[in-house]
Amino acid sequence: MPRKIIIIGAHAAGVDAASAARKKDRSAQITLITKEKKVGYSRCGLPFVLGGHIESFDDLIVFPESFYKIMKLSLLTETTVTKIDPKTKTVDIKDNLGKQQSLSYDSLIITAGATPRVPKILGLEKKGVYFVRTIEDGQKISKALKAAKSAVIIGSGLVGLEVAVACCERDLKVSVVEFLPCVLPFLLDNDMADRVQKMLEEKGITFVLAEPVEEIIGSDKVNGIRVGQRVLPADVVVVAAGVTPNVELAENAGILLGKTKAIKTNSKMQTNLPDIYAAGDCVESVNLVTGEPILSQLGTTAVRQGKVAGINAAGGKSEFIGTLGSWITQLFETEIGGSGLPAFMAEKYGVNSISATITSKTRADYFPGALPIRIKLVAEKQTGKLISAQIIGGEEVTQRINALSFAIQKEMTAQELAKAETCYAPPVSETWEPMILAAELLLRKIN
Amino acid sequence: MPRKIIIIGAHAAGVDAASAARKKDRSAQITLITKEKKVGYSRCGLPFVLGGHIESFDDLIVFPESFYKIMKLSLLTETTVTKIDPKTKTVDIKDNLGKQQSLSYDSLIITAGATPRVPKILGLEKKGVYFVRTIEDGQKISKALKAAKSAVIIGSGLVGLEVAVACCERDLKVSVVEFLPCVLPFLLDNDMADRVQKMLEEKGITFVLAEPVEEIIGSDKVNGIRVGQRVLPADVVVVAAGVTPNVELAENAGILLGKTKAIKTNSKMQTNLPDIYAAGDCVESVNLVTGEPILSQLGTTAVRQGKVAGINAAGGKSEFIGTLGSWITQLFETEIGGSGLPAFMAEKYGVNSISATITSKTRADYFPGALPIRIKLVAEKQTGKLISAQIIGGEEVTQRINALSFAIQKEMTAQELAKAETCYAPPVSETWEPMILAAELLLRKIN
Repeated sequence: MPRKIIIIGAHAAGVDAASAARKKDRSAQITLITKEKKVGYSRCGLPFVLGGHIESFDDLIVFPESFYKIMKLSLLTETTVTKIDPKTKTVDIKDNLGKQQSLSYDSLIITAGATPRVPKILGLEKKGVYFVRTIEDGQKISKALKAAKSAVIIGSGLVGLEVAVACCERDLKVSVVEFLPCVLPFLLDNDMADRVQKMLEEKGITFVLAEPVEEIIGSDKVNGIRVGQRVLPADVVVVAAGVTPNVELAENAGILLGKTKAIKTNSKMQTNLPDIYAAGDCVESVNLVTGEPILSQLGTTAVRQGKVAGINAAGGKSEFIGTLGSWITQLFETEIGGSGLPAFMAEKYGVNSISATITSKTRADYFPGALPIRIKLVAEKQTGKLISAQIIGGEEVTQRINALSFAIQKEMTAQELAKAETCYAPPVSETWEPMILAAELLLRKIN
Repeated sequence: MPRKIIIIGAHAAGVDAASAARKKDRSAQITLITKEKKVGYSRCGLPFVLGGHIESFDDLIVFPESFYKIMKLSLLTETTVTKIDPKTKTVDIKDNLGKQQSLSYDSLIITAGATPRVPKILGLEKKGVYFVRTIEDGQKISKALKAAKSAVIIGSGLVGLEVAVACCERDLKVSVVEFLPCVLPFLLDNDMADRVQKMLEEKGITFVLAEPVEEIIGSDKVNGIRVGQRVLPADVVVVAAGVTPNVELAENAGILLGKTKAIKTNSKMQTNLPDIYAAGDCVESVNLVTGEPILSQLGTTAVRQGKVAGINAAGGKSEFIGTLGSWITQLFETEIGGSGLPAFMAEKYGVNSISATITSKTRADYFPGALPIRIKLVAEKQTGKLISAQIIGGEEVTQRINALSFAIQKEMTAQELAKAETCYAPPVSETWEPMILAAELLLRKIN
């Protein structure tokens, strides 16, 4: 009898799980079940379609129909899983015509994703208020922006800022409202976040920070928001206030959640119930620096966890030991990214840290086109071990984040990084790579 | 009495040594002595001025006169050191007017550099034959190229190929002659080198490999070269056949050379004689993978060694433990780089290695402008430890080399790299970073 693997969800984590399971077990029956009509697309690409960098939302579909055929994966779209029964090892499903059935599994992988968090704001039901999660969301926003002159984005996380930039690129007047005191909260320390905010302000985006939105105003359709004493005009409001893990189905089946209210798994991505795995935005991850549970909710984490779940569900052996939350984005021409635990987070966790920030150039100073770059490094004071990298720069930030992500994962110290070897040629780098200069400054502060 | 530090040479290693010494000892008398008229410039930039990417050769001067004033460094240009006397701790010098004197030192740092290697070829004395080392060389070549229609480059190392590209960008007919069987010898494995060659051939450069140049032909002025049975026309010939460490002065003073015929130092950059240090192209380095002596002769190695020598010469404590020879260049729109020990070199050193090569894209596949990238990883078979990275790609190769250079330095295994965390956003990267995919393939081959 072939192994039956059911996967709930069919995006980053789900499809990577299916793909990994198939590679491990050529004969398994693998079924992906999703509520959505369109599957296997890149949510992370939505803001970049809005901004006009990618032509069509359909371009975001990373896994076309042919992929499922080649990989012999059954795909049930517009189908809801209504119940998981771990005793009988079955899931109950219902399709869009209301037809119900029960499917049995040997291994079940839950990649149920997350749902946009709905902040407590009056008037969210008004026309012209959107969330950003699905291709359909993207299409609605794109249509609305055509007729709009102004937009307010609620939330200044990665998605919020990416959408704000997209609106700005479409020549709208854009405001971003954030109830925390700085942009990219939890990702950057304040000093770095301030730089990002200033860059975006120079591009014409207005920020209202440290104030919650009181109300979305307008009769039937939104025409503005009230925040503190101010009214900001808005033909369109996009809410990007983070996402909440989809755990109801799992919880009802007796699957345990962690501290973060996401599904708890071990390093094999196994839940507390036999043969049930979980991966992606619906699970809790471990922060590699602190060892504490966190919500990662990044595409890179999702695909890695999905792969591990898929391999294990198909009888293989793989582990996902945790995450540094390495992230990157591009806002206008500036790349911004980070890895590890920012200094303010380190303080919260009781880690005694020390920081150093430098500015430099991305290429030899005399080479035309050299762009500014700012690097902040944070190390554990006692050991000198690197725990965070934060970079804002004109180019090649992404791979510097990867380099420092590798360094943090391998427990490199500031001392070691200050001595580390980098490569140099005038068109692409400096003899003294900015990462090394930042490490040297950090070292001087530690000693 | 202030400490007297004399530095022979005033380029990458020399100026960085001076700078580091000054930071360590505010009151030291620091003197740099060089034969050249122009100092403190980037030799690595010469081909890029020839290609028109940088406006003027003077733009390459990284350390202007003001730098020496601010740092209180005495600079003697157009001055030759004729003798080092370690017993009396003096150096004899002669300026361009023939005036001689003797200077005493407490610490001496030799950063005498290297001289273009002169291959055994008939006709090298003809007009129109050039070497590439100094700004003056660059200026002469640049002038010659204006009147030329064809150029032959002898040598296909980094400088050779960079100059070939520059000549091509100036619309000359360009041939590269290399007596070894592939381009970038010692830097890339054959399979990767072939790709570079093909890319350059598509741009119009002709290659004659595995054949030594017989003769440079022409009556007074060069008009071609004879290689094997063929005659290649050439109005200009540029010899880029590597460099030979300048060691005569050191050798005459009793300073020991290593296996590579370059100055031997310990990790403090101390020679065998008390208070005499050496750094840069004239010294022997240790390969971090094999532990064997090598000639590094890269700018990054020079500045790092110079800094260590400067700190130690000024009474501080610093070490340079060796190099991976991490390198990078840009030829037309393609970045090419490497770090560590290529597979063919590993074989020579008796290291049992295994390799994997993948091709991928530099950004999300659906993001316009995503460019191809090819990554080769080599690991020690027994341990899985990474020993080499070689990359050819359209963008962001440099920092990937740095990332893998950090990985090799921290003895990361293929297993660890396959699981390592990278960052992702559609405009700048893929969820499955090509470096990780290459590590996965490598791992499958090891297991």
